[in-house]
Parts: sequence; C-alpha cells; structure tokens
Amino acid sequence: MHILITGAGGMIGRKLVDRLVRDGNVGGKPITRMTLHDIAAPAAPNDAKFPVASYAGDVTMPNEATKLVADAPELIFHLAAVVSGEAEADFDKGYRINLDGMRLLLETIRARAYKPKFVFTSSIAVFGAPFPPAIPDEFHLTPLTSYGTQKAIGELLLADYTRRGFVEGVGIRLPSIVVRPGKPNRAASGFFSGIIREPLAGQEAVLPVPDTILHMHASPRAAVGFLLHAAELPQEKLGTRVGLTMPGVCCTVAEQIEALRRVAGENVVKRIRRAPDLFVSKIVEGWPTRFDTRRSLALGFRAERDFEEIIRIHIEEDLGGTFVH
Amino acid sequence: MHILITGAGGMIGRKLVDRLVRDGNVGGKPITRMTLHDIAAPAAPNDAKFPVASYAGDVTMPNEATKLVADAPELIFHLAAVVSGEAEADFDKGYRINLDGMRLLLETIRARAYKPKFVFTSSIAVFGAPFPPAIPDEFHLTPLTSYGTQKAIGELLLADYTRRGFVEGVGIRLPSIVVRPGKPNRAASGFFSGIIREPLAGQEAVLPVPDTILHMHASPRAAVGFLLHAAELPQEKLGTRVGLTMPGVCCTVAEQIEALRRVAGENVVKRIRRAPDLFVSKIVEGWPTRFDTRRSLALGFRAERDFEEIIRIHIEEDLGGTFVH
Repeated sequence: MHILITGAGGMIGRKLVDRLVRDGNVGGKPITRMTLHDIAAPAAPNDAKFPVASYAGDVTMPNEATKLVADAPELIFHLAAVVSGEAEADFDKGYRINLDGMRLLLETIRARAYKPKFVFTSSIAVFGAPFPPAIPDEFHLTPLTSYGTQKAIGELLLADYTRRGFVEGVGIRLPSIVVRPGKPNRAASGFFSGIIREPLAGQEAVLPVPDTILHMHASPRAAVGFLLHAAELPQEKLGTRVGLTMPGVCCTVAEQIEALRRVAGENVVKRIRRAPDLFVSKIVEGWPTRFDTRRSLALGFRAERDFEEIIRIHIEEDLGGTFVH
Repeated sequence: MHILITGAGGMIGRKLVDRLVRDGNVGGKPITRMTLHDIAAPAAPNDAKFPVASYAGDVTMPNEATKLVADAPELIFHLAAVVSGEAEADFDKGYRINLDGMRLLLETIRARAYKPKFVFTSSIAVFGAPFPPAIPDEFHLTPLTSYGTQKAIGELLLADYTRRGFVEGVGIRLPSIVVRPGKPNRAASGFFSGIIREPLAGQEAVLPVPDTILHMHASPRAAVGFLLHAAELPQEKLGTRVGLTMPGVCCTVAEQIEALRRVAGENVVKRIRRAPDLFVSKIVEGWPTRFDTRRSLALGFRAERDFEEIIRIHIEEDLGGTFVH
C-alpha cells in the first residue's frame, strides 16, 4: 500500500510516520511506499523497510496536487493546515491552504479517477458557543473562527465527495492534543501542555486560567491511533455522516495538576505558577468542554482512560522515560 | 438605497423585483436604484420609479462580480443558484455557480471594502436524513446532495464573512415554495405545486406519492416576505448564527387536497389522478418533514397560517383571481 501524508512535518505527522515505519502495515496491509509532504521537506525516516519520498511544497502550487496523486496512493492522511491563530490573522492564507488546498486535493483525486481512503483531520473548532452541556455529533457546526469555518467546509466537501464515490472519506475532529513535546508555542491553549511539560523538565510553567476550567484532551499517541483506526474503518460503518468527534479525557485544570502530583510528586507540581490572564481566560471559556462521543467510541476509537495516562505517555514517548524530580 | 439581485430572473427573483418596485422602499429606506443580474438579462420592470439596470452573465465570469459591486450596492439578494437536480447531474457546474460564485461575490465585496447587507437563499436541502421528529436550528447540516452541500458551505462562508465584519449576512433556508406558477418542471417535488396548479387550470394532475406524505410549504409571496424581513433585520438580533430555517405550513398531501376542495370544490379535486411512482416516493420520503422554527418565528418571519391561504394566494397572484370550476 502506498500512503501519502500531507503536513507530515508537523507534530502529529512525525509521530504518525514513526508509527507507520514501526508497524510496516495498516490493518494488516503491508506498506510498500510512503510519500511525505509539507511546506519544508519532512525528514525521511532512515529505518523504513519501504521507499519514502519527501517533498517540500504547498498543495495549492500549480501541479503540486497532481504530482502527489499521480501514482494513486491508496491511503491519504491530509493533515496539512494553517493553524487556528494564523488562519485568523491571515484570512487569505487560511482559506487558500485550508479550503482551496483540501478542495484541490479532492478534485485532483477525482480527475485521477481512482478512489483512495482519505483521512482528514478536522477539529473541535468546528463548534462554537453557546453549547449544550455535552456536544453530540448531531450538534450543528457554528465555528467562531475562520479556521473552524475552513475545517467545517472541509468536512462538508469530504462527505459530498464520499457520497459521490470519488473518495472514501473520514473526518476526525481532534480534541486538544497534550502533552505537546518541544518548546512552548503562543497558542491560547498552550498552557494545557505547558503546565505538564515545563515542570517535568525542571522549569517553571505559567497557568493563566482558573483551576476550574474544563477541557477535553488526548495524547499525541491517541491522535495517531485515531488516524490509523480511521484508515482501517470499513466505509459502510460510517454511512453518509463522515465527520466524527474523537473521544478524549475530559477534566479540569485542577484534575490535570492532581494527576501530575500522582505521577511526578509535589516538587514538580510546585513549578506551576498561577498568573491569571483575563484575556486568555476569556478565550478558553468560549471553547467547548464536554462532548458526547458515543458514536466514535462505538466505532472503536479509543483515547486514554485518564489524565495520568496522558502524562505517562509523554514521559515515555518524549522524555525517554524520565523527568526532573 | 441601491439594491443588487442575483438570480433576478427566477420565479422568486421576479416576484421580489415586482414587490420592491411596488413598495419603493425597504424598511422605510427609499430605493434609489436597482441592479438585476441573471444568466439571461432579467426583464426590467417598466413601472419602477427608480433606475433599474439589467445584466446577463454568470458571477464566476472574469470581472463580473467586480462589475456588480463596483457601485457598492447597500443591499444584496444573492438568489442565483444551479438548482438541486442540475447540481447533482453536473458536479462541476454546481460547485462553480453555487460555491465559487458565492465565494467570489463575498471576496469581491471584501476587496471593495464596504459592508453591505447580504441576504442569501439557502435551502432545507442542507439537512439530510435520519432526522429527529422536528428539526431544530441546532441540528447539524448533513446534506445528501451536492446542492445541499454547496448551500451549507455558503452558510458557513456567510457566517465567517459576517463575523469578520466584511458583510452583514443572513442565510434563510426556504421550505418548498408552492404554488409555483407556470409549466410543470421535472423536479421530484414538482407535484406539490402540480396537484394544485393543474386542477385549477382545468387540467389533470398526477399525484405520484401516498396521501400521507408530510411536507413543509410556503407561498412565493411568503418567500418574498422572508427576503424583505431578512433585509430589514438588525444584525445584532442574529448574533453569530446567521443561518435560519424559515417557517412554513406543515401538512400532508391529504390535507393539501382537502384545502383545495374547500377553496375550489369537488370538481377541481377530481382532476387529481393517483399514479403511485415508487421512485419519486422514495426520494420524497427521504426529505425532512417537520422543522422547529421557533427561532425564525421569534425573529418575526411569517409564513401562511394554513394551506388554504397558500392556494388563495396562487389564485390571486398568478391566476387573476379566478380558476376553472
């Protein structure tokens, strides 16, 4: 099986590539070839038992999409996207990459006249307040950002192209992925990872919101699991509603900190400094909190059991099994 | 006030133009100028007390959108669309007119840097089965046609362009509009008008579905009323959720026929011939039946009280007050 991954250089993309190289197959089908694509050429894994091509580019550049689907990859993970903050700041770029890029890829597949499995990473940003206590899959998409709008449109296109028989699409709405390895970024949601990652690295972390903030999380490992499960899911199980909210661990910031205390001890927890930031708090309070994910659970998608497990995965996967006590 | 109407040559467009010419104002603001646009130049009304320009074209032609918004019309009714059947048969044309056309118009307004009121006709085709007993405005958009997909994307774009301050958008989802004047068309829904229109004209009408079929209707006059009410609606009353399902008369085919009997008598009703068509029945059974329209009702949108009123409006407006007894 030939696999194409757009946005393969991103955090989830890299972890997906590692997992595919390790597994060597998807749902029992051997991987024969992989094509990686991102705005900078993703590092090709050197331990792969199959050829891996890596390209730098932007899917909206002339002939770029044509090049990517020329050899008809059977499985496509379309992860490439301009993130939330950037799509809000640069209206044109967000629509170009997130909407035109998605549509161009789908159109190129249609022109190539074959029918790949197409796994699309959508986002819970497709939902906008006011919310019911738990958001079901039947709740309407009322995004309050351009990013969320572009992802919602991507879901609609994917459903129509699937219904028409041009692709076999699955759109998975990811919760916040924590713990993100690496440097802190400037996303408003960054502290959800920061209050775990920095203390474990012996550094101070700033908590800008109240302990009572409720949010849904899944680990990067769970995110990769969602992608692979989506790839293996028989299309007839999905029907016409190809967009799915993924499961996750729903907990408060206080519960996150309590989990950190149990895993790493009081010394580590002490490195969290409370510095209330009304601007960040206001943004975060507008985000969805709880989801009714019975549909994705029934379809076999699995996240972590609790936040402790999310922390342990970070220590194991990103910190080599250890941390600064 | 300068008003632009795309799709002005269609059935609702023509009735909207007539009403605007008759009223001479929208919400008390005098109309100073009107621009009509359609694929064939719409007939300009000859009794208008303000200048009316009429253009033939397709909004996706080079410079067409630029020409239409060059003089910054303050109120835009975007009615132009490839209809359901055609959008399903011609995938490219549907996306070009219904998606690219909408987006290009919004983009051109943004580039022109002014903020018109933008009234967009969406459709209940944005909803797809399975449905709850009454579909609320919070129900997700899961269209089962390319047309419905394009309209749902139009709603998402309109909401985002409104949120960003580029337009003041309202998207109104129209129920089935009956009684459509003129010749029968080949739409699967055509019989809803046909079983009223043909008998009143002394002709036989074919009823392809069971009497128990439930559907939501509004008259062309109500549709024009929705458009004008949307144009006058203060934007702050809508908030970020700019898509609204319009009210209508929800009744069975049996109730439609009973209403015809009360309005026009047994002789007219006898001209309806039952000829069950399983193909048409199957399509119609997949359509939404009841909507919870409390939001649009609370915002002041009004449809007819009952199906009798819909029939009387047809007789008055399209048949000069009389029919074949």
